[in-house]
Amino acid sequence: MYSGEGSEDIPAYPVQVYPVEGPRYGQYAPPSSNSEVQQWFAAVDKDRSGKINAKELQAALINAQGNHFSDTCCQLMIGMFDKEKTGMVDVNEFEQLYIYINQWLGVFRTYDRDQSGAIEEQELGQALQQMGFRFSPSFVKQLINRSDLENHHKMSVDQFIVVCVQIQRFTEAFRVRDQQMQGSITIGFEEFLGVALEASV
Amino acid sequence: MYSGEGSEDIPAYPVQVYPVEGPRYGQYAPPSSNSEVQQWFAAVDKDRSGKINAKELQAALINAQGNHFSDTCCQLMIGMFDKEKTGMVDVNEFEQLYIYINQWLGVFRTYDRDQSGAIEEQELGQALQQMGFRFSPSFVKQLINRSDLENHHKMSVDQFIVVCVQIQRFTEAFRVRDQQMQGSITIGFEEFLGVALEASV
Repeated sequence: MYSGEGSEDIPAYPVQVYPVEGPRYGQYAPPSSNSEVQQWFAAVDKDRSGKINAKELQAALINAQGNHFSDTCCQLMIGMFDKEKTGMVDVNEFEQLYIYINQWLGVFRTYDRDQSGAIEEQELGQALQQMGFRFSPSFVKQLINRSDLENHHKMSVDQFIVVCVQIQRFTEAFRVRDQQMQGSITIGFEEFLGVALEASV
Repeated sequence: MYSGEGSEDIPAYPVQVYPVEGPRYGQYAPPSSNSEVQQWFAAVDKDRSGKINAKELQAALINAQGNHFSDTCCQLMIGMFDKEKTGMVDVNEFEQLYIYINQWLGVFRTYDRDQSGAIEEQELGQALQQMGFRFSPSFVKQLINRSDLENHHKMSVDQFIVVCVQIQRFTEAFRVRDQQMQGSITIGFEEFLGVALEASV
């Protein structure tokens, strides 16, 4: 079953998950000046420490359902750019994060065609395809189900960001082990654990 | 590098992560009567819904550093027994969780020899060995480092529980794919992602 042979059933994974340039992202371009980022940063940095942690970010972000972004989402976002592993980002790291947040919002809005603030299974599949992933329908369904605690078969924007960050992390971990681009890897127990744990919150 | 051949460098993983019986666990036996669990449940179920969610559990659990158990820890614990995926456990599921919490506390206290309320790298290695894992020193160091945001080289009890639950989940996912017990698996991209995502919070 996991013979390592190439198969049409094994989807390719993209070389770059989030193209920074491209028509889809054009409308959510980085801010035209640093001052916009700095204003955002100053507004979010409530304790004026010069750093933003996950709680401060969470207080600033509300989804279309009227809920603050989840703990997991905010921790994952901070963790992406928090190079010193302090649980906080400075203004330069925040600028990179700000660009990412806007890109995610852009993809999300593009596929949230009825502007409901939530995307459904088919829309999620299209969004992931746009990012370069060819996932099976059953996998897309699994993604919706694990996010969808209320059984609405929908995903909010922060749930979407969580899925994007986690897929990106695991894809990178997979890619460095699949130098031949075969679509499968052979991995030992401890290394498997290490990869899986490193990419979890 | 990932040839799939058996090697002395690949540690075996245990068939059962948490032996329910055994001398180490004797002193943290399940409560002698259901009423003890029911009292705990009633105290934790603040909204008297008949169910406990991660927030209620978090309000009831404080580590030796005086902090409530982390969001991640409480979500993982609820998720272990929350069979209907509602984000809550009922009193029967809670009874199983209660037994687990006490087992983890038992292992933690056994290896926290100076009773500091935190375990260090060497102690963590011994605790995991007691659970049947033979991890390399560098892997144990990695486990401490990912939990240790304050650079104290120590792990609190809730961080320890997070590590235990995550290792257990990933071990189970690995084991079902390694029927021959070779210590390595060959896995395709989508399945790798599915396993990794399923086991994350």
